[in-house]
Amino acid sequence: MKTVRCSILGFGAIGQGVAEVLLMKKEYLESIGLEVLVVAVVDSKGATVNPEGVDLADCLARKRTVGTVAIEKLTGVEIIRSIAHELVIETTPTNIVTGGVGLQNMFTAFETGKDVVTSNKGPLTLKYRELMEAAKAAGSNFRFEATVGGSMPVINLANEVLAGNQLKSIKGILNGTCNYILTRMLEERASYKDILTESMELGIAETDPTYDVEGIDTACKLVILANAIFGRDATYKDVEVTGITKITPEALEMAYERGHVIKLIGEVSRERIHVAPRLVPINHPLAVRGILNVASIDTELAGEITVTGKGAGPIETASAVLSDLVAIYGNR
Amino acid sequence: MKTVRCSILGFGAIGQGVAEVLLMKKEYLESIGLEVLVVAVVDSKGATVNPEGVDLADCLARKRTVGTVAIEKLTGVEIIRSIAHELVIETTPTNIVTGGVGLQNMFTAFETGKDVVTSNKGPLTLKYRELMEAAKAAGSNFRFEATVGGSMPVINLANEVLAGNQLKSIKGILNGTCNYILTRMLEERASYKDILTESMELGIAETDPTYDVEGIDTACKLVILANAIFGRDATYKDVEVTGITKITPEALEMAYERGHVIKLIGEVSRERIHVAPRLVPINHPLAVRGILNVASIDTELAGEITVTGKGAGPIETASAVLSDLVAIYGNR
Repeated sequence: MKTVRCSILGFGAIGQGVAEVLLMKKEYLESIGLEVLVVAVVDSKGATVNPEGVDLADCLARKRTVGTVAIEKLTGVEIIRSIAHELVIETTPTNIVTGGVGLQNMFTAFETGKDVVTSNKGPLTLKYRELMEAAKAAGSNFRFEATVGGSMPVINLANEVLAGNQLKSIKGILNGTCNYILTRMLEERASYKDILTESMELGIAETDPTYDVEGIDTACKLVILANAIFGRDATYKDVEVTGITKITPEALEMAYERGHVIKLIGEVSRERIHVAPRLVPINHPLAVRGILNVASIDTELAGEITVTGKGAGPIETASAVLSDLVAIYGNR
Repeated sequence: MKTVRCSILGFGAIGQGVAEVLLMKKEYLESIGLEVLVVAVVDSKGATVNPEGVDLADCLARKRTVGTVAIEKLTGVEIIRSIAHELVIETTPTNIVTGGVGLQNMFTAFETGKDVVTSNKGPLTLKYRELMEAAKAAGSNFRFEATVGGSMPVINLANEVLAGNQLKSIKGILNGTCNYILTRMLEERASYKDILTESMELGIAETDPTYDVEGIDTACKLVILANAIFGRDATYKDVEVTGITKITPEALEMAYERGHVIKLIGEVSRERIHVAPRLVPINHPLAVRGILNVASIDTELAGEITVTGKGAGPIETASAVLSDLVAIYGNR
């Protein structure tokens, strides 16, 4: 049995999803030879620490009742520096302006020779090259499948399974909220505003939906794909961005009558990164409905390979974190 | 630069595709640190051998003009035993009754400590467990992404990218010929027989189409998925099989009017392996058209992940062989 000691930095929806998945999958992980010991859980107010392993069920219960896991006044950076562990699971909120605490957490993790698995897009959108260099210099593993498309695998699919296949472009629907809104607008012949309100009530859209509906979230994911798969050194400013706020039910209906749907499509290649509403034929593999995400990878030898999956959700995103963890430490 | 010496055993459409892809990708492979040196090419009449590397372009030209690469009267097994190399690329034709020469080629490769990458379903359908044991005992790599779904990744996707995700079932369309026939029957309102004739003329169906249209090819692929992904010890006799020969254009049309298409769906789980025509809602991710293949992987944590790609074609299948080669020898 190999013991992997890890910290969970950030205990919002995704961090809690990771804790739940680690509890659910304890037996399974042991069956493949891994004991995952969480030595610290950190949220914005403080931390729960135990070098022998914290009680994750208790952390989840306290977060839900008291609103925090804080017992000790420690930050992520302090945990990384003071507690022995191998893996930092970085699930603090995405901040694409400054990188947020995630950026410092990741640099500190590499500085102290730790591996990082993350769902946090901010640092990767701002400082991809610097982070990769720091990881490489430290000999650390750095994996981030969860940053793009939730449970839908695309980074590891492109870089590992399709290794040897030169890729020409990736295009797809990388934001479930926008896809939900456009799907519902067409099906209900309802206005953007009405469906946005519905999405907020259902918890599909955030209270401030700007990040999703203006295409910013899709743009960040494209930056990560550009860097991780196409070897670019892109940041957010390299993306041409148009969101979905100007789309009318009339436009959707007119497109539909001509055999098309309007989707917010992100596309990345060696030459260009852009996101905009585009017409997609109704029976095209990209025309997925509801909150689904989809990515179509255009390869030189194998044509288009398309993958579809749930793009969001704490458990779905946590499953991508778990896959990355197993990829690093599992005996394969 | 790492030199990988390999033999290509079987020089039909797939073997030739591998040779073409190795020629096309020489520079790319060198850019990732790999020199692939083919030391022998074998077809049913004999072999071309050169421990310094055979001329692949010349082999392709001779195969197309004279019909064979035979210069020396050597078999695959003799090549494996007598010529130093690390990797056997096994692309002889699938024979699900005896396993064909592929079975002996693979066992001999493992016996002599070589790695195997293959597109040949026969040996894996008949003797999966024995082959895995032989590979393990020899410390050999054994990869076979090309056996299922051509360029559509499913085995490596499930076992590597989705590692940590317990899988419940895989269902999909794994035979492009059947999917082409059913798609065309609906679109042209034509009989099974007429479209089968068209498919043969286009080279989409074989001269003897039994293997495809009776569901046998799909069943073999399901056996491989059952063994490789669900840890079973299944053979062809464990599959319940119904083909598409009884489907009428009237049935397709009636289903379509009710919002469904009829597809030949293979499904595998821990409990059951079966292939049969089934109704699929028109806008379901499994409802792909033409020669496309699709596999929907039902996961415990991440819901359904669906992958679509070209299921056949020499270059597409050879691209899966290349991915497996890079997975074994590439520095990642």
